[in-house]
Amino acid sequence: MTTIVFLGFGNVNFHLINTLYKHNKDSVIQVYNRSEINLNKELSKIPFTTDLSKIKEADLYIIGIPDDAIAAFSETLPLKNKLVVHTSGSVSMEALSKRNRKGVFYPLQTFSKNREVNFNTIPICIEAKEEADLELLTNLGNSLSEKVVEIDSDERSKLHLAAVFVNNFVNHLYAIGDDILGNNELSFDLLHPLIEETASKVKTLSPSEVQTGPARRGDQKTIEKHLHLLKEGPESELYQQLTESLMKKFDR
Amino acid sequence: MTTIVFLGFGNVNFHLINTLYKHNKDSVIQVYNRSEINLNKELSKIPFTTDLSKIKEADLYIIGIPDDAIAAFSETLPLKNKLVVHTSGSVSMEALSKRNRKGVFYPLQTFSKNREVNFNTIPICIEAKEEADLELLTNLGNSLSEKVVEIDSDERSKLHLAAVFVNNFVNHLYAIGDDILGNNELSFDLLHPLIEETASKVKTLSPSEVQTGPARRGDQKTIEKHLHLLKEGPESELYQQLTESLMKKFDR
Repeated sequence: MTTIVFLGFGNVNFHLINTLYKHNKDSVIQVYNRSEINLNKELSKIPFTTDLSKIKEADLYIIGIPDDAIAAFSETLPLKNKLVVHTSGSVSMEALSKRNRKGVFYPLQTFSKNREVNFNTIPICIEAKEEADLELLTNLGNSLSEKVVEIDSDERSKLHLAAVFVNNFVNHLYAIGDDILGNNELSFDLLHPLIEETASKVKTLSPSEVQTGPARRGDQKTIEKHLHLLKEGPESELYQQLTESLMKKFDR
Repeated sequence: MTTIVFLGFGNVNFHLINTLYKHNKDSVIQVYNRSEINLNKELSKIPFTTDLSKIKEADLYIIGIPDDAIAAFSETLPLKNKLVVHTSGSVSMEALSKRNRKGVFYPLQTFSKNREVNFNTIPICIEAKEEADLELLTNLGNSLSEKVVEIDSDERSKLHLAAVFVNNFVNHLYAIGDDILGNNELSFDLLHPLIEETASKVKTLSPSEVQTGPARRGDQKTIEKHLHLLKEGPESELYQQLTESLMKKFDR
């Protein structure tokens, strides 16, 4: 059994702790956070500390704190030659302190504390320098998910960039759709089946293949109608830029 | 029973014909298209014509042709005072010829011929001038879907605009994600769980509420890393514009 200390209590660590503790109570031996946190009833049995000097001996230390704090934080750890990993998509493995063995354990998903997550289908992207560490991370990944892939920092940064497009930016477009309907007293619910089908389609067909819409067709009349509806707002700019980008792509 | 003649064989009519014919063979009494089409084996029993002068008497005529052709086409119909509807999100009901009773039957979904559709959850947006016509369209809608809503042309045009954001533009962002991964020999499959969860989240939480990512956090370091990865391509421009739009929205 791998013993794990979690360092930080961001969304990723929150869900990892919850899931791993359910699978195997004894593997999660401690949670550190720089300030007190409210662990829910079940998790409250896990030893908790706000004192770095008191972190326990473990096989694996998982850092789950904001990206820009990872490097400096890893230098402050009173550990030597331990396996210390972070869970970030965009931070290089090399950012970690060289006093310990470095690694990454990046679950490619969007996490909110108030929403349950099923790790089973989530790709777990792992990286480490030493073979034994890779094996440990692979085994831990396999205990959570059907999909564990070894991906280096360069590839991971591109994966993370792509994730920003299909998650953060897509969600922003959902919000714009929501605004347009809200301003006209129409319910966002009306769009759910369309949102779902759009997401579902690209599981079997490539997105370029299924692209539709006025920009794809070069349908200037509809595009002008839409720009007229949007007037001169910031959404009008985005509409134009996305339309231009699509027209360029499809030679319209 | 409502008898229906379908005029045109675009994606929407294709799926409507398939579904209605399965429910009730006798309601689909004819399909017109300006050129010969290959109806699949089952549908080949439906009377078909390419000759407008031969279209039959029916309770309802459903036009399913490209948006910019609807107005002119409706003028050429050798019909008088019949209920003639189109299936478009962006074309006003008034675009239809005044020689007939006008209406709209707009299923709010994205349709591809090679992908089956379950109408059950698809919002059917209807519009008509006369009470009896509204009732006929409501009944037809109810025979297909749990969600039939009366929406006028003005509202429908805004709904369609919102649909362009959450479907056409979102799909374009999927394609960009696909490109980024493809250029780095990573499989688009890795993003499916994220795409699915992003779409699923907004069924219960509002998109603004669940927005995450570097732009939302104002994380300039990650944004600069991403722009560096994208270099000066068209995707870099879109990244900047979407990031600016997000930062403005969240006061970053």
